[in-house]
Amino acid sequence: MFSDSPHEECGVFGIYAPSEDVARITFFSLYALQHRGQESAGIAVSDGKTINTHKEMGLVSQIFDERSLRHLKGHIAIGHTRYSTTGSSQVINAQPFTMHTLLGPLAVGHNGNLTNAASLRRQLMERGVGLMTSSDSEVATMLLAGLEGNTWSQRIDAFTNCVEGAYCLTVLTRDALYAVRDPWGLRPLCLGRFGDAGWVVASESCAFDTIGAEFIREIDPGEVLQIDRDGPRTIAKHPAQQQAFCLFEYIYFSRPDSYLQGQLIHEVRMRLGHELAREAPAEADIVIGVPDSALPAALGFSQASGIPYGDGLIKNRYIGRTFIQPDQRLRQQGVALKLNPLPNVLNGKRVILIDDTIVRGTTSGPIIKLLRKAGATEVHMRVSAPPIRHPCFMGVDMATQPELIAFNKTEAEICETIGADSLAYLSMDGLIRATRRDANGFCGACFSGKYPFPIHEAGKEIFELTSI
Amino acid sequence: MFSDSPHEECGVFGIYAPSEDVARITFFSLYALQHRGQESAGIAVSDGKTINTHKEMGLVSQIFDERSLRHLKGHIAIGHTRYSTTGSSQVINAQPFTMHTLLGPLAVGHNGNLTNAASLRRQLMERGVGLMTSSDSEVATMLLAGLEGNTWSQRIDAFTNCVEGAYCLTVLTRDALYAVRDPWGLRPLCLGRFGDAGWVVASESCAFDTIGAEFIREIDPGEVLQIDRDGPRTIAKHPAQQQAFCLFEYIYFSRPDSYLQGQLIHEVRMRLGHELAREAPAEADIVIGVPDSALPAALGFSQASGIPYGDGLIKNRYIGRTFIQPDQRLRQQGVALKLNPLPNVLNGKRVILIDDTIVRGTTSGPIIKLLRKAGATEVHMRVSAPPIRHPCFMGVDMATQPELIAFNKTEAEICETIGADSLAYLSMDGLIRATRRDANGFCGACFSGKYPFPIHEAGKEIFELTSI
Amino acid sequence: MFSDSPHEECGVFGIYAPSEDVARITFFSLYALQHRGQESAGIAVSDGKTINTHKEMGLVSQIFDERSLRHLKGHIAIGHTRYSTTGSSQVINAQPFTMHTLLGPLAVGHNGNLTNAASLRRQLMERGVGLMTSSDSEVATMLLAGLEGNTWSQRIDAFTNCVEGAYCLTVLTRDALYAVRDPWGLRPLCLGRFGDAGWVVASESCAFDTIGAEFIREIDPGEVLQIDRDGPRTIAKHPAQQQAFCLFEYIYFSRPDSYLQGQLIHEVRMRLGHELAREAPAEADIVIGVPDSALPAALGFSQASGIPYGDGLIKNRYIGRTFIQPDQRLRQQGVALKLNPLPNVLNGKRVILIDDTIVRGTTSGPIIKLLRKAGATEVHMRVSAPPIRHPCFMGVDMATQPELIAFNKTEAEICETIGADSLAYLSMDGLIRATRRDANGFCGACFSGKYPFPIHEAGKEIFELTSI
Amino acid sequence: MFSDSPHEECGVFGIYAPSEDVARITFFSLYALQHRGQESAGIAVSDGKTINTHKEMGLVSQIFDERSLRHLKGHIAIGHTRYSTTGSSQVINAQPFTMHTLLGPLAVGHNGNLTNAASLRRQLMERGVGLMTSSDSEVATMLLAGLEGNTWSQRIDAFTNCVEGAYCLTVLTRDALYAVRDPWGLRPLCLGRFGDAGWVVASESCAFDTIGAEFIREIDPGEVLQIDRDGPRTIAKHPAQQQAFCLFEYIYFSRPDSYLQGQLIHEVRMRLGHELAREAPAEADIVIGVPDSALPAALGFSQASGIPYGDGLIKNRYIGRTFIQPDQRLRQQGVALKLNPLPNVLNGKRVILIDDTIVRGTTSGPIIKLLRKAGATEVHMRVSAPPIRHPCFMGVDMATQPELIAFNKTEAEICETIGADSLAYLSMDGLIRATRRDANGFCGACFSGKYPFPIHEAGKEIFELTSI
Repeated sequence: MFSDSPHEECGVFGIYAPSEDVARITFFSLYALQHRGQESAGIAVSDGKTINTHKEMGLVSQIFDERSLRHLKGHIAIGHTRYSTTGSSQVINAQPFTMHTLLGPLAVGHNGNLTNAASLRRQLMERGVGLMTSSDSEVATMLLAGLEGNTWSQRIDAFTNCVEGAYCLTVLTRDALYAVRDPWGLRPLCLGRFGDAGWVVASESCAFDTIGAEFIREIDPGEVLQIDRDGPRTIAKHPAQQQAFCLFEYIYFSRPDSYLQGQLIHEVRMRLGHELAREAPAEADIVIGVPDSALPAALGFSQASGIPYGDGLIKNRYIGRTFIQPDQRLRQQGVALKLNPLPNVLNGKRVILIDDTIVRGTTSGPIIKLLRKAGATEVHMRVSAPPIRHPCFMGVDMATQPELIAFNKTEAEICETIGADSLAYLSMDGLIRATRRDANGFCGACFSGKYPFPIHEAGKEIFELTSI
Repeated sequence: MFSDSPHEECGVFGIYAPSEDVARITFFSLYALQHRGQESAGIAVSDGKTINTHKEMGLVSQIFDERSLRHLKGHIAIGHTRYSTTGSSQVINAQPFTMHTLLGPLAVGHNGNLTNAASLRRQLMERGVGLMTSSDSEVATMLLAGLEGNTWSQRIDAFTNCVEGAYCLTVLTRDALYAVRDPWGLRPLCLGRFGDAGWVVASESCAFDTIGAEFIREIDPGEVLQIDRDGPRTIAKHPAQQQAFCLFEYIYFSRPDSYLQGQLIHEVRMRLGHELAREAPAEADIVIGVPDSALPAALGFSQASGIPYGDGLIKNRYIGRTFIQPDQRLRQQGVALKLNPLPNVLNGKRVILIDDTIVRGTTSGPIIKLLRKAGATEVHMRVSAPPIRHPCFMGVDMATQPELIAFNKTEAEICETIGADSLAYLSMDGLIRATRRDANGFCGACFSGKYPFPIHEAGKEIFELTSI
Repeated sequence: MFSDSPHEECGVFGIYAPSEDVARITFFSLYALQHRGQESAGIAVSDGKTINTHKEMGLVSQIFDERSLRHLKGHIAIGHTRYSTTGSSQVINAQPFTMHTLLGPLAVGHNGNLTNAASLRRQLMERGVGLMTSSDSEVATMLLAGLEGNTWSQRIDAFTNCVEGAYCLTVLTRDALYAVRDPWGLRPLCLGRFGDAGWVVASESCAFDTIGAEFIREIDPGEVLQIDRDGPRTIAKHPAQQQAFCLFEYIYFSRPDSYLQGQLIHEVRMRLGHELAREAPAEADIVIGVPDSALPAALGFSQASGIPYGDGLIKNRYIGRTFIQPDQRLRQQGVALKLNPLPNVLNGKRVILIDDTIVRGTTSGPIIKLLRKAGATEVHMRVSAPPIRHPCFMGVDMATQPELIAFNKTEAEICETIGADSLAYLSMDGLIRATRRDANGFCGACFSGKYPFPIHEAGKEIFELTSI
Repeated sequence: MFSDSPHEECGVFGIYAPSEDVARITFFSLYALQHRGQESAGIAVSDGKTINTHKEMGLVSQIFDERSLRHLKGHIAIGHTRYSTTGSSQVINAQPFTMHTLLGPLAVGHNGNLTNAASLRRQLMERGVGLMTSSDSEVATMLLAGLEGNTWSQRIDAFTNCVEGAYCLTVLTRDALYAVRDPWGLRPLCLGRFGDAGWVVASESCAFDTIGAEFIREIDPGEVLQIDRDGPRTIAKHPAQQQAFCLFEYIYFSRPDSYLQGQLIHEVRMRLGHELAREAPAEADIVIGVPDSALPAALGFSQASGIPYGDGLIKNRYIGRTFIQPDQRLRQQGVALKLNPLPNVLNGKRVILIDDTIVRGTTSGPIIKLLRKAGATEVHMRVSAPPIRHPCFMGVDMATQPELIAFNKTEAEICETIGADSLAYLSMDGLIRATRRDANGFCGACFSGKYPFPIHEAGKEIFELTSI
């Protein structure tokens, strides 16, 4: 509740490590990837013969105990944390998806969104396949179970040829772990070394730090990596002509201590603040950020502008999911349930407020009201990303286009709506500069409307069988 | 624990009743069918557009509450209670199975066992279908989802052509309810009328009594019944040359207040006692039965023999599943946790003890010991069925052949093993006579080894993906 | 739901057995006493230093697992199953009650009802004691914690001097187990031997059979028994001039396989049938009983009358607590959810229907309607107890006086209300005769209004702090 | 796990607000006070007649739902969040404690620790009171239930005369809310206004911000405040000669956005950094803090020293309670499961590391190792409080004296143990200066060993009845 942020969809992890307790290591890795999905989580383990799975709704810490780990014995594992973007919030949609196939047991963890899922569903159904869920991750698993090819590598190759969209897959079979990244490289995926004989893959490098693994490199766009007793080897590589890494991983999704494309996310976010200070300076006494994700950009803005950095808003660390509705009076309190301003810091000050994104615009106004109530004389809002004007079809839950405030209003109108003294967004150029990468390698479709490939199926609705 | 009975596999129910709260009626029907499966239960409801499902591990009373019923709105429903015979005891195996298909949503409840499931699995996998469970009910559902035919009736027809084994299916689609019974009629299924405009199908007629429905007739072997706005109509009928109704429904599975083939089960069981008294009389002072299922046969034996009927054993009504293991001393107590003899009834008496079956022979000995300890001077055991010497492949969990005591021992040896003064089983002829039906219409393979059709796949193992 | 029976309040158990796993034995004993209370259960164990307790809402089998037993180590234990009569259905009211006292830790299990609880509460509060519940069992425990005396035996003695009403207590201290029975002997309590060096006490002897203990004798009215390393010894005995054992233990509460006052309950119930047949014969074709508790009386009626015994009603064994409400139509089905008549047994027959009690009279009518619908031509109801016209203040939940049908109506009126062809209750004399005991030793206040001692506090209301 | 911080014991809240949904408001207030106790929580509500309570183990968001709030109707409420210091972690110890007393129902929430609890327990037991728990909060409630006085105000007065130690109480009776603070003012408690006619009290002012209440003033040491239909009024005031507010509320416990003694906690913590920078400067390139509590002090150190502030450690926001043990390899990872260093920020840098406390010294070493591994060339640890050398008897869980690293080692030894290049603690003078209050008003016993009153009962053990 009380949130106006886009939602990342999932975190994936995989490990091949003979003679290690791979389920336990996967558990702690999922802990580190919990920020990428808090609705459900699961672990699947192969012992060379069969695959055991445990998955449930809830946080990683709630789902697993010693008893469930005891049943997850083996030497290869994949793990998944999930926030639903397509498919509803039910345990039947929890991943990994596990299936019996002609080539033996199969488990798949998927991060992303297949943009041609509706066509693929239809093809599957025309082939006589029933689908238990509305999830495109089941579609992905069922495709792997049924595509042509007598080996998993042939099938994975066939898979990459028929799907469109964003996907990082970890695929677990009896004897091997596969890591697959879509040709555009929309979502992150990296490879690490675990001990002498083990290998790990994860959405973000922070998982490696947690378990003491060593970061080796990113999986390349379009790469299929197979890891088995012979170690990791690239068995296919079909990059798109134009790569399209999601800019929001830099801006908001990834943990600040993760490395992406050789960049520490925290550092990039500080540079977003530098760029923003240069592009949209303001006379002010203090720079503050909306905790937690916008704090590095605020620190960067402070450094670049010379305006002192301060803590202006305190976040209640324990706000979790509650089913208690605030009454009328409490609703007016709004974001105050989550954020509290520090009057002594703010009183009489001209404040620069940094946030990393405005989606629907529902929280910025209340936050600015809080700051003024705490004594801020001016509030200059600076956003460390360009305005979001287009929906995402690649796996981010970002609101529908009509809900996007920047689709409906000009910057001046937004400024007025949220009650700021001034408002500025970071430019696309500034954003790219902060990443220190080539502009061509990114997907910024939510800002520009330029999608990395044509989106044919937007709005195709898939009816849903509900399990309750 | 402490049980030596065969286990029935499932109960199915279906209802088509516009303007009724079909989920609530299904709930109370499953209550009445709880004896056919206590591991999991589920209800699926169609509202004409989509299908909503709720299924869980546990007893019917534990699984559903007003909140879950509220989400099950519609006018057609199917329900299922399950005891696992194939597929392990996990919620992923709970039924109804629900799938998206080219013809729209589909839910299936299955009672029975497909004897060519392993071949069917292979065919499905060769067609590129991944299967999430090791359950033959998922196979059945996936077949329906994928068989040729542009209508459900064509597909159900195709289904009956390619499967072998025991099956009663309730099939729920957007607009209709189907009831399907295998050509041999191995498992029971009957049709009833609910109110003015409603129709119901159920494994046993006792479910109709519970909800106030009127019994109309049994679904015929090989019949496919479609129920929709035009009421029920038979859309196919392919009976086997030889019917093969499971004799154990009479002996043990069905509730005594259900009607099968025009017979009240309770009455048939009393006649089993009559036959037994004629075939294997014994001089004795009292006839007692092992509660609850053998009591009607004991009453019948008493009537036929003129030896007084008495309550010799009291059953603890609250013995449920417990995870507490008895220690050494308590283990010696054995069945005493469940049954307690009445010394005043038994003391100094020559006792005829009626049970309906001896499978492994693990409880008869301890029961006889209890009776002697309570003062019985003689114990003559009479079993209201022939010796079980062959495994069941048609959906009954009966132990493997080497575990069957009558496979390994002669009657004399069994008598000695269990410590009875005499032992007699009912003959096959006596059993048939008690049913008042033609001998050719039954499956008595567990007694005779004569299966209604060749069993090709016995022992084909299906590896299992375990979810925990 | 659908029940019109009085409710027993509690079952108690205690064990002193060095070198035995006393918690496990208590668990299986509570299993056997489950019929005396299904709302909550608990076990408290002393290891000579401290007392550990585990108690929860639910059935015994649901409450305990190996993990909870592991924490219940020691050599003395008490256990309790509870159905609430006073105090509401919450875990805070679950027993045993455990307290820190000047003499060390104390745990108490209580079966019964203190009729001067309101005065005792007031006295305690005047002494400055706060009470956490409205339960008279907390009052009993708090009294033991605070009465004069430097030893537990002195305090227990003092306790028996100040309380009135029904009580069987098991008291657990660091070093000893005490069993206490009220001077009137209202509730049952018996002593048994467990192995070579162990001793057990229980509400009913059926618990001894379950764990393989040997019945020794009943605890006498007014007796206080101490069991410790020196074995059991009577430390006080203050019987009332007139004993008053609850007749309903014979009629309904106790398990048929328990012995009370040297009588097997099952046998007494058969004799209730004999007496009833003599007092109130009827011309009929069949005698049936309402399952399960009235079956022995029906068998007895059959024996004495020569009219054949039959099973006329089948009970759904799985009816548990459900929170699903039947809708209007299903409500009309009423008892059919629980009971189903056997038409073949009943059709065209004049039926004698035996039940053990009519309290509010809400189920007899529907049952008779079921029988008629199943073809019974006449229904002659016979009740194996006199009419209930007065409330119970000694621990039985029996309805308030205005709710009692026999308080409001004559037998003829009741007969008409329930739609029977004839109705007869057993006479008080007949009831006493069946027990083969002296009439003076019983409490039959609910029939006669003659309470064993003056009831002063009826209707004194105790406000309740609700925990949810 | 992985924590070396002292633990605050509890948060209390109370509200008197006719025509408001007081339970809902209490719920959101407990949300804001969750940091003061995460083991259990509860709410008690009076409707003028009786008191209803709901309390459970877990986080506030897990404990309450709309259904439980529906049962908490009334116009006066108290709420409590608990971390156990005395009494074990079981629901029986959850607060508020609720009792029936001579003056009517009573509920009490307690923050603090009674230092003469053992004597009080003995006195209560000698008066014949049994105690259900080993919690001093039950002692407090039982005292109120039993002390002399015909009114609650008399009893509360008597209470303050016989107890020693730290306590903030919220007392709920049928008609009034009382707020009581110990004479030394050891724990915080403040008064606010809620809407037109409502009044609230809370441990910290941040709860007022959350619900939109207006901070009025702190409850004075020794003050007893009664709030009822006549509004709040002070009915007693017995301050100690010397006040003794807990310094750790400034250093660590309170939320940074709370006001204590007219000071914003966040600002005081920044000044702790200023003082530390002045007292113990170091040549370095960057100042970092251990998140989250030490960040304000780090920011203050940076401001005062001119050395740039940076984020050097990222905290995993989702680390919750898990029952999964890390294996050997992961254990070596230690704090890395919770904290991750940012190499780009730290590499090649001389780092000043600010933490707010070293208790056992178990996490400082691993953190410093992390920093060095991330490239820090020097690590100068600075602690924003003096060394902790003495145990706390006033309600803080701080480790036993032998566990305290500063009790066992000199600063030089500690520095070597944790592997820092230099180590300095803030002086007591510096700490006091940062609070801008008089030194005489504080309890700094854990630093100095000078307790505000003699501690007589240290080490008196109370045996515990364990409920599991």
